[in-house]
Amino acid sequence: MTKFEYEFPRPALAVDCVVFGFDGKQLNVLLIKRGIEPYKDCYALPGGFVHIDETIDDCARRELYEETGVTNVFMEQLFTFGALNRDPRDRVVSVAYYALVRSEDFKPKGGSDASQADWFKINDLPSLAFDHAEILNIAKKRIQGQIRYKPIGFELLDRKFTMTQLQTLYEAVLECKFDRRNFSGKILKTGLLNLLDEKVLNVAHRAPRLMSFNRERYQELSEHGFNFEI
Amino acid sequence: MTKFEYEFPRPALAVDCVVFGFDGKQLNVLLIKRGIEPYKDCYALPGGFVHIDETIDDCARRELYEETGVTNVFMEQLFTFGALNRDPRDRVVSVAYYALVRSEDFKPKGGSDASQADWFKINDLPSLAFDHAEILNIAKKRIQGQIRYKPIGFELLDRKFTMTQLQTLYEAVLECKFDRRNFSGKILKTGLLNLLDEKVLNVAHRAPRLMSFNRERYQELSEHGFNFEI
Repeated sequence: MTKFEYEFPRPALAVDCVVFGFDGKQLNVLLIKRGIEPYKDCYALPGGFVHIDETIDDCARRELYEETGVTNVFMEQLFTFGALNRDPRDRVVSVAYYALVRSEDFKPKGGSDASQADWFKINDLPSLAFDHAEILNIAKKRIQGQIRYKPIGFELLDRKFTMTQLQTLYEAVLECKFDRRNFSGKILKTGLLNLLDEKVLNVAHRAPRLMSFNRERYQELSEHGFNFEI
Repeated sequence: MTKFEYEFPRPALAVDCVVFGFDGKQLNVLLIKRGIEPYKDCYALPGGFVHIDETIDDCARRELYEETGVTNVFMEQLFTFGALNRDPRDRVVSVAYYALVRSEDFKPKGGSDASQADWFKINDLPSLAFDHAEILNIAKKRIQGQIRYKPIGFELLDRKFTMTQLQTLYEAVLECKFDRRNFSGKILKTGLLNLLDEKVLNVAHRAPRLMSFNRERYQELSEHGFNFEI
């Protein structure tokens, strides 16, 4: 077998992907069931080792696709995990990536080192291999931080949505409940919403009003941020 | 010579440190002059290869100390750079760290692979080795983003300071000029400042008033953020 030789010992380099999926009601995360040791049959984040001829970004996309069939997800780099004993096989340093998508747009399917792949409710997770619970937790904090100062969540709703749907999204990501009037007042003050002259169809009475986001303001706040304290 | 063998090729793993220093007037960055090839005699960020038995955080602290003598700096992870040809020697992936300190508290001194180490004005930099100009740029954007929603900068001033000193800090980090009255109004609105019943001594007339920051509010805004748009 070919061996690769170096003058100094090298950690192995891997990636792990935290893909959150909003289903209109709650937040989910994409997990695989490991088909190989270590942690065989245990749940884990999709991921794997960086090939010598691919960038770390490309590796994240490749591993996500190979292990879950999920593709065309815009992932951002989260953090690099370099603790000494995070993998029982060897010293492995992992660059973690994260994304937040509409879960209904993706139908995961296990492949490669993953015997299964599926969405799991964030508040009902199996125990995870390696330090993946920690990685997931840091990814969750990142999206919770971002949704407070950037309008990241709006792409997870239909083009026209109700205030209740928007509030449900914020509550799912931030894991809390908001007062309806308070939430509505604060979000309207950001100028992000266009109130439409349309209501939800097929509702007998008190049909809720539809809204869309103001693309210009959305762009502006994506760049400069707001402070959404509720 | 001992060799280390692996079944698959591995990228080398390194760290690079972006240490910004505020000197009361402008922003500086800590650079070393490389004592070895590649890029011998070229300026670069302090950094080096991760040892197999140290965490990446420990590596960043060690390399900063060995190459510049600078120690006791709280660095945060910035981003991991994994482009294929960023180092002419080999595939090298680098985890970058950053910090913002009072430059007067540190007197850099070259060591190890660095023949020199010193502070350089951010607006008058030599050209840098590898992709270090890109790393520096991303670090700058990070602190520029943070100073708009967290009170990160206050530790760079004396315990009592004037509004002009605070404005100078913001202008140095954000690389722009603010209207004095506008800046003052916006920063006072954050509730971060205690106006003291003291003025700068040894000033003939119109001695500027001193202020300190409100620790309670500082703590609160460090956790929850504000949106400082000026």
